[in-house]
Amino acid sequence: MKPIVECVPNFSEGRRQEVIDAIVNAMAFSPGVRILDVEKDADHNRSVVTMVGDPDGVLEAAFQGIAAASRLINLDEHRGTHPRIGAADVVPFVPISGITMSECVALARRLGERVAGELGVPVYFYEEAASRPDRRNLENIRRGEYEGLKERIGKDPDAKPDVGPEKLGPAGATVIGARQPLIAFNVYLSTDNVEIARKIARAVRHSSGGFRFVKALGMLVGGQAQVSMNLTNFHRTPMYRVVEAIRREAARYGVTITHSEIVGLVPHDALINAARWYMQIDNLTPDLILENRLWGEEGMR
Amino acid sequence: MKPIVECVPNFSEGRRQEVIDAIVNAMAFSPGVRILDVEKDADHNRSVVTMVGDPDGVLEAAFQGIAAASRLINLDEHRGTHPRIGAADVVPFVPISGITMSECVALARRLGERVAGELGVPVYFYEEAASRPDRRNLENIRRGEYEGLKERIGKDPDAKPDVGPEKLGPAGATVIGARQPLIAFNVYLSTDNVEIARKIARAVRHSSGGFRFVKALGMLVGGQAQVSMNLTNFHRTPMYRVVEAIRREAARYGVTITHSEIVGLVPHDALINAARWYMQIDNLTPDLILENRLWGEEGMR
Repeated sequence: MKPIVECVPNFSEGRRQEVIDAIVNAMAFSPGVRILDVEKDADHNRSVVTMVGDPDGVLEAAFQGIAAASRLINLDEHRGTHPRIGAADVVPFVPISGITMSECVALARRLGERVAGELGVPVYFYEEAASRPDRRNLENIRRGEYEGLKERIGKDPDAKPDVGPEKLGPAGATVIGARQPLIAFNVYLSTDNVEIARKIARAVRHSSGGFRFVKALGMLVGGQAQVSMNLTNFHRTPMYRVVEAIRREAARYGVTITHSEIVGLVPHDALINAARWYMQIDNLTPDLILENRLWGEEGMR
Repeated sequence: MKPIVECVPNFSEGRRQEVIDAIVNAMAFSPGVRILDVEKDADHNRSVVTMVGDPDGVLEAAFQGIAAASRLINLDEHRGTHPRIGAADVVPFVPISGITMSECVALARRLGERVAGELGVPVYFYEEAASRPDRRNLENIRRGEYEGLKERIGKDPDAKPDVGPEKLGPAGATVIGARQPLIAFNVYLSTDNVEIARKIARAVRHSSGGFRFVKALGMLVGGQAQVSMNLTNFHRTPMYRVVEAIRREAARYGVTITHSEIVGLVPHDALINAARWYMQIDNLTPDLILENRLWGEEGMR
């Protein structure tokens, strides 16, 4: 099986289309890479690129994107509502198929070395690629943003980059790492009482005692209560388990799930795992799925 | 999306390996075709080949396989426990992706014309390709088997082939058609009482008043009651609906589903449909599945 990695670089430019284009074009030349999505946000003044492909191609594309962003974006002039410390702000690698998390960590480290060495940009490793526990969480690294880091770097030992110089140019610093695919998933309830959604969100999310890989908020959307979630590791906290926990909590308040929705994309395996669990198909393995037989040898799965 | 069709020809030879090899080799040369499986059964004296690929390639492969079987198998000398009327006994086309049922019917008709015209073998069209309602069901066409058909053909108007001569050579006749993919699926119950499995089988199967596209039997397997099924159209009678009906019937008898199993292969969509239904993901469409984005443009799905 040909390894497929996803990379989702976040760039601190969401307004000047010519700059966004230049960055994306710098990435698009890399062979074996497909750009799936470019999402720009003018308020955040930030763009998020989603690309997939073979590991070496994706690493090269990410490097070219970071190089272009570092040349074209000046953090001293950047204003936006989203926290950021660099022109290429965050660059996560995500294992999709035929590749392990530790291989994605190795990709992150290789990219970091190149960014530090060839561009002179300080690099911090985060999540699965973190070199210290306090750097697993992106928000810890980004606290104080570009302006704060500019003052702390070279003085505060906690601000010392993992690789690269202990000083900040106008391109800022880049946070590079590896993480599981994220599923943005909303569950709607048969009520307009947002308090019920908030209680259920608290019950299922990690921060208040729930499932380890769930972030959740209760909100009111179109007059309907919604539990809005990010599932940050669907292998270890599967979708079906969260859905059934919400269903049980909802019943406690006399409401039901009316429907749910995927925001963005969902990995194939998250759905297959749910089918296996609900229908109790103990013997279900990927080679029992007809389509996998067709495409298996072509190397796609 | 490149169209993918499956074809599952059944040949009346399950003992002489050199004959099976010759038939399979005759099919394997067709470009754009992959042979997924060859299953031979000596008692049945029958082999079932599963192949997939582009429609023209699969049609050519099927024709070459029928031609080889018609040359190498003599029905006057064939003995086996499985009913049969021809050397190439049954040849169904199955839509997998990017192809409709009516395109599969057209393939069946084209293959039938070639088999009749070039090989002089009488052809009956069945299931979705049937030209008369009484020929939808394979068992109606095959009643009396080769030996019975030999006496009826040319005399009984009901035995008149759809295409080809009204006489039977030693290669017999071939039944060609189109059908939905079949899912062989067993559900195990928390009891050794086979009567409960039989009652549930009767409740869910078409022949005794259950779901239209379910065939079911209750049996005892390794001391555990099992509902053994063929789902003949998972689009119209979905897996999840059958599983939940069995669960409800089982509860009536105080038992539960312990697990289930796929026999052979299951189409990807049957599982995705279940995930969508159980988790109520109303907005789930194929383009929301990450992997489909990766492979979409390469034409695989």
